[in-house]
Amino acid sequence: VTASVSGTGLRDRLLGARILLPTSSAGVYGYGRDFVRTFDAVDRFVNQAGSVDLPELMRFPAVMSRSDLERTDYLRSFPDLLGAISAFTGDNESHAELLMNLDAAHDWSHVFGPTELVLVPAACYPIYGTIEGRLPPEGRLFEVLGTCFRHEPSADPGRMVMFHQHEFVKLSTADGALAFRDYWLERAHGLMSGLGLEVESVVANDPFFGRAGRMLAANQRDEALKFEIVAPINDREHGTAIVSCNWHRDHLTSRFGIDSADGEVANSACVGFGIERIVLALFAAHGLNLEDWPSDVRVALDL
Amino acid sequence: VTASVSGTGLRDRLLGARILLPTSSAGVYGYGRDFVRTFDAVDRFVNQAGSVDLPELMRFPAVMSRSDLERTDYLRSFPDLLGAISAFTGDNESHAELLMNLDAAHDWSHVFGPTELVLVPAACYPIYGTIEGRLPPEGRLFEVLGTCFRHEPSADPGRMVMFHQHEFVKLSTADGALAFRDYWLERAHGLMSGLGLEVESVVANDPFFGRAGRMLAANQRDEALKFEIVAPINDREHGTAIVSCNWHRDHLTSRFGIDSADGEVANSACVGFGIERIVLALFAAHGLNLEDWPSDVRVALDL
Repeated sequence: VTASVSGTGLRDRLLGARILLPTSSAGVYGYGRDFVRTFDAVDRFVNQAGSVDLPELMRFPAVMSRSDLERTDYLRSFPDLLGAISAFTGDNESHAELLMNLDAAHDWSHVFGPTELVLVPAACYPIYGTIEGRLPPEGRLFEVLGTCFRHEPSADPGRMVMFHQHEFVKLSTADGALAFRDYWLERAHGLMSGLGLEVESVVANDPFFGRAGRMLAANQRDEALKFEIVAPINDREHGTAIVSCNWHRDHLTSRFGIDSADGEVANSACVGFGIERIVLALFAAHGLNLEDWPSDVRVALDL
Repeated sequence: VTASVSGTGLRDRLLGARILLPTSSAGVYGYGRDFVRTFDAVDRFVNQAGSVDLPELMRFPAVMSRSDLERTDYLRSFPDLLGAISAFTGDNESHAELLMNLDAAHDWSHVFGPTELVLVPAACYPIYGTIEGRLPPEGRLFEVLGTCFRHEPSADPGRMVMFHQHEFVKLSTADGALAFRDYWLERAHGLMSGLGLEVESVVANDPFFGRAGRMLAANQRDEALKFEIVAPINDREHGTAIVSCNWHRDHLTSRFGIDSADGEVANSACVGFGIERIVLALFAAHGLNLEDWPSDVRVALDL
């Protein structure tokens, strides 16, 4: 006997129980009471786990400048996932014309043009632009809870177009960054299995775009730069990533001119907890009724 | 002797104290530790105040569908404030070309086209699409913490392009909606003055676009549909709205086909707390050092 509701039916069961609320867009859900309660509990749990290392706390809105985004090189690797923001460029006349011509296509592009803003695709990206001067010898450690947008509309609730990452980000020497990544890979595995999730750590790659992307993905796996902690959400055989642990080498720090205390270009690493996915994995593992969850899980989450 | 740091210098002082963090975009800030602490405290304070009425809790991401946005009629009233999301439409070849031609203009529009998503402009908008069937006789009450985008880049920290509204929304008969609006207008005034803010309630209007908008704004004021609770942030003479209390009549409910128990088109009303603005007003009133704030304010906010 198991309370598991994993499998392709999870989405429908969550919608039926009003834990998720349907909207008219694929990949966009409202969160009902028990989703919010669990979301807040998981976020607090992650926050407390990381607070022992006294990170510098930062938060950023879901938008950032095109120029900073270009510096991260995201446009090279994941152009297809990015959301750019456009805004009205018209006058009274074109406004009147727009209103008269609204139709099923919802195409306003003749009176909307690009702004200088894009949606943040990874919670740690806005941090790099705020760093001034060389790092101290021990490096710097940041905590950020951020909103990420990735344009991949899907019926899978584990693939929402907008979601939250709670990240700890280390900027330091290469050795420090790698040690941080490995420290969190073990720690996050323990934290997630402590919530009753059947987790596994696997070498992973980002979904790099296009022909050139296949080589980038292969390199990333060969060098074991990215690990994911996966857990069952919609598919018992292939878990879904709920945490990722990444060593960026100097990919971001070099572009933002961030140096270690020794004057060398710094390295960075991050651990990112996908809050919505952890919530979904918990519902998949323990059922839809929070009151029926194992007592040790409820205690751990202060639910 | 006053701890006040209001006036045009507030932004610079907040940046100097790393309470706000600069970014390369106007109207976009990172939040440092004390901003986050105060933000969370204010949000909890608002949440607790509203919880006595047992609202239905909902949250939504910062994106919603164009079709739902069109139903709210936002495009008629505020086209200039809306953010629409575009995404990459190209292939390997146009991607390579894009990367070779990045320049200071950051114009990617030849390979980006409209998606079906826009940024949510008001926290309560996504609620209406989730309502099914007639309302019960007492109506329904919702609580939502949401992210709003308004494209009006400014150096005034009280006018961020993306900010959070904590709203309570009542759907009911016209009498019920008006009573709710007036109940919260008085209540919110008391809550905000209890935080040591010099608040005032004023009749207000939304910033309707263009020539036709002037009449809409005048009508809204004549009918006293919108009140704002204002407090000093950047300007001691003209306070900035930190809370708004709105009676929408059937403007939204009619478009989403929401009926009262009696079969008539329902009305709606909302109170929206602008969390960032309340935080800014607190720093303006009590100074930059949380430890120096009046003890009753610290107790009220559990800081």
